[in-house]
Amino acid sequence: MFIRNAWYVACTADALPADQPLGRTICNHAMVLFRGPQGQAVALEDFCPHRGTPLSLGRVQQGALVCGYHGLTMGCQGHTLHMPGQRPQTFPAIRAFPVLERYGFVWVWPGQPEQASPDQLPPLPFLEAKDWAYGGGLFHVKADYRLMVDNLMDLTHETYVHATSIGQPEIDETPCRTEVVGEQVVTSRHMTGIQAPAFWQQAMAAHGLDPHAKVDRWQICRFTAPSHVHIDVGVALHGMGGIDAPAHQKVQAVVVDFITPETATSHWYHWGMARRFQVQDAALTETIRQGQSKIFSEDLAILERQQQSLSTNAGRRLVTLNIDAGGARARQRIAQRVQAEAEHASTEPPPPVQPEFSHA
Amino acid sequence: MFIRNAWYVACTADALPADQPLGRTICNHAMVLFRGPQGQAVALEDFCPHRGTPLSLGRVQQGALVCGYHGLTMGCQGHTLHMPGQRPQTFPAIRAFPVLERYGFVWVWPGQPEQASPDQLPPLPFLEAKDWAYGGGLFHVKADYRLMVDNLMDLTHETYVHATSIGQPEIDETPCRTEVVGEQVVTSRHMTGIQAPAFWQQAMAAHGLDPHAKVDRWQICRFTAPSHVHIDVGVALHGMGGIDAPAHQKVQAVVVDFITPETATSHWYHWGMARRFQVQDAALTETIRQGQSKIFSEDLAILERQQQSLSTNAGRRLVTLNIDAGGARARQRIAQRVQAEAEHASTEPPPPVQPEFSHA
Amino acid sequence: MFIRNAWYVACTADALPADQPLGRTICNHAMVLFRGPQGQAVALEDFCPHRGTPLSLGRVQQGALVCGYHGLTMGCQGHTLHMPGQRPQTFPAIRAFPVLERYGFVWVWPGQPEQASPDQLPPLPFLEAKDWAYGGGLFHVKADYRLMVDNLMDLTHETYVHATSIGQPEIDETPCRTEVVGEQVVTSRHMTGIQAPAFWQQAMAAHGLDPHAKVDRWQICRFTAPSHVHIDVGVALHGMGGIDAPAHQKVQAVVVDFITPETATSHWYHWGMARRFQVQDAALTETIRQGQSKIFSEDLAILERQQQSLSTNAGRRLVTLNIDAGGARARQRIAQRVQAEAEHASTEPPPPVQPEFSHA
Repeated sequence: MFIRNAWYVACTADALPADQPLGRTICNHAMVLFRGPQGQAVALEDFCPHRGTPLSLGRVQQGALVCGYHGLTMGCQGHTLHMPGQRPQTFPAIRAFPVLERYGFVWVWPGQPEQASPDQLPPLPFLEAKDWAYGGGLFHVKADYRLMVDNLMDLTHETYVHATSIGQPEIDETPCRTEVVGEQVVTSRHMTGIQAPAFWQQAMAAHGLDPHAKVDRWQICRFTAPSHVHIDVGVALHGMGGIDAPAHQKVQAVVVDFITPETATSHWYHWGMARRFQVQDAALTETIRQGQSKIFSEDLAILERQQQSLSTNAGRRLVTLNIDAGGARARQRIAQRVQAEAEHASTEPPPPVQPEFSHA
Repeated sequence: MFIRNAWYVACTADALPADQPLGRTICNHAMVLFRGPQGQAVALEDFCPHRGTPLSLGRVQQGALVCGYHGLTMGCQGHTLHMPGQRPQTFPAIRAFPVLERYGFVWVWPGQPEQASPDQLPPLPFLEAKDWAYGGGLFHVKADYRLMVDNLMDLTHETYVHATSIGQPEIDETPCRTEVVGEQVVTSRHMTGIQAPAFWQQAMAAHGLDPHAKVDRWQICRFTAPSHVHIDVGVALHGMGGIDAPAHQKVQAVVVDFITPETATSHWYHWGMARRFQVQDAALTETIRQGQSKIFSEDLAILERQQQSLSTNAGRRLVTLNIDAGGARARQRIAQRVQAEAEHASTEPPPPVQPEFSHA
Repeated sequence: MFIRNAWYVACTADALPADQPLGRTICNHAMVLFRGPQGQAVALEDFCPHRGTPLSLGRVQQGALVCGYHGLTMGCQGHTLHMPGQRPQTFPAIRAFPVLERYGFVWVWPGQPEQASPDQLPPLPFLEAKDWAYGGGLFHVKADYRLMVDNLMDLTHETYVHATSIGQPEIDETPCRTEVVGEQVVTSRHMTGIQAPAFWQQAMAAHGLDPHAKVDRWQICRFTAPSHVHIDVGVALHGMGGIDAPAHQKVQAVVVDFITPETATSHWYHWGMARRFQVQDAALTETIRQGQSKIFSEDLAILERQQQSLSTNAGRRLVTLNIDAGGARARQRIAQRVQAEAEHASTEPPPPVQPEFSHA
């Protein structure tokens, strides 16, 4: 149910200070993240080989992870570097997971290390370019991560779940179109000559546009495996070219969603918005972040109840509509990759043996 | 363990406004209740056929139930009436449950719809007649509903659980008698020439009687399937005829208990008191309601711990005494009806098929 | 996983007043403790033979336990003494557990009653002698009781878990030695010519010693089956004989730990300190008690997370080091006794039959 050979967001770079580890379960792996001697992010199993205590209860000293129970000190490769009064060279290693830090996030690879490559990170220019500003947050959601993918690939829910902010009847009324573009599943909807909803009216005002002017609005949802969804969103003054309108006639952004499975029925949800207007305005970044937090918490409430309902109705069939095509295609890609990984599993090396040692 | 072909109280009529649905699980069925176009109460499965979200998260518009996620609109028969941009005529229907509204309550029938008939509602004159006043409340209890039936069919517990309000040693000392009267199991106890306990002293004072006068007290517990218990209670001045004494010489009431199974180990408990004295005194109604709420919450604490104890001692036999005869007979009737329903289950139509549809 | 034929601490003597029962689960047995007619401690199954309600919800009257639901009255042997309107002589008895009160604690024997003997209580002179003072407390810990044994038999964790109070690097640096001495597993460590850590500096000051003087420190952990750990601890002025130094040149104490299994993954932990200095100083007793409570709550946090980690990594092997020898030996003794009990189980009498009775 999870693609394992892929990069998942584990946390923001800020969430990982130099002296404190962070415990996080990703695709059912309990991991501990910390920063090594060069400040690089590291991910190991969150399990001390000595007594099984979570290493995330410990502390980081000079780039090594010191267990909070008996002081066993773990290096970046999962080997025990030091333990007072012991010769730890023979201790069994724990599993180390490939890690990357980029775009302001720490990424981990829960699958086979030899397949991990930075090339497989998706390009996210809106998180790096100087003419974009970013703000975001993190939710823990007690729902299958694919329910969040469904949610983000079908924005008709905005009319009902987010009626007071980004929802408007025209979303329902305007058909969407789903297609596969390279590695992406793309569902797009273009509304023309409409009134902007509350959220976008505020953005227009902040950008010096008349919030009551007629606009063209776009929503282009892009799913990339394993479970990233980025949505081109915005409004431009009506008839000025939509997403391609000149910068001073539009407010343009990308809703950035990194959906990281925790267990079969829970996930970590890093959400945010990268915008291309008024990028120097830090107060605006914070206002948008708080608004988005409120809006996305409305989804959280729905998804957790949906998960409960589906769990108690396991196996019951659902109606799949054209508006669900984006989610359905995304799930198809996930299923294909999971299937492919299962077929190659026989070639995967067995997990490291953990014999019981007794040391003098 | 539940009788299914029977009317259960789902909620009070007041708990179901015109614009808001109510989710409630009854006999393991997750139901959503709402009011249709004519204000009539409706009960459907609490499951949107589109994505499985509980419909009780939605809202009611012009007597139709609008899903809070994507706006699918459900009619009173469980058919999809409307969904923006879709042709919902072919959507699979969800289950609709027979519903009645009477006596100030909304009643649902979790079993076979064709067997449901208003005739099977029990007569409850004390909830309708003008010379009675009623007040009540609702508890959620984490215990098998039959433990509540046992509790209400054996009032010796009042001496121990409710020592400061309605309990008194004479309950223990006076034998009770259990008999079957038509559809009812009836356990009765009559105490004569006693001091009234605190609760009834207050009632006597409110009715202009000397609270310290000797009284005759009666308790007549009446169980009706599936799980209703109504108890004739009161005190009359000693020697004046007990329950048949003239109105100005007695305080007479019915403890009204509707016990609705939620799951095997939890139930909804609508409790209340209908009284035949000082019926215009709304302040007295509220005083009694609050007193009863406090008294019945003492039962709740016992029953939830009893349930835990029985769950960890599953299969262990208990002593059944004469005081338990009312509960034992009631359970017997429940078991007979459950058994009879199981035997006829082969003739029950299979549940509606829920194929996966794909619509343009 | 538990030794059953052994005395476990159920509660402190103070925790059992004359009029209130106490419910406590010990080795998976739900027990109710109360005081009988002579004030003696009694332990029965916490299960009313009538309706299965926990008897611990009731009250004690004249040395008998009255069920809080229907007033069934239970005697010290597990027989029903009285029930209003009933002839309880024929009621099935519930199980009674051997109980002792000594050393300020109530002890219960969850195993075969005929094997219980006061001789099997461990000698605990530091809890009785006049030249010792005692203070302690109780924690409920969601972890296998053997994790607490491990914890107390390997004090190297003090350096990491209790760095600000009793931990110091010299603990790690000084090898420990484990041996079996009669019924005890003993792990000892002696540090000489060191600075006392914060906790012991305060004790030295309270005893009129220079807290900055060089000291010799000792830690002698003594495990006794089923799960008691007592640790000789203290510091003496350097070179004065350590634990054998004259009383005015040392601060000497015993850390007293009674670890009572509740379930496979939880236990009751009675902790305390008996000290041999300034024994009249009640304020010092309270200061030490509060300090110890804070220190031991640091262990609790670690152990509960360790338990979770081990539960999700069931069967995974751990490294066992020389510092773990005390815990390993203690577990070995537990395992041997559990095994021996299992082998003799065929000779154990079956539990009392609990037929269903019906009484007039």
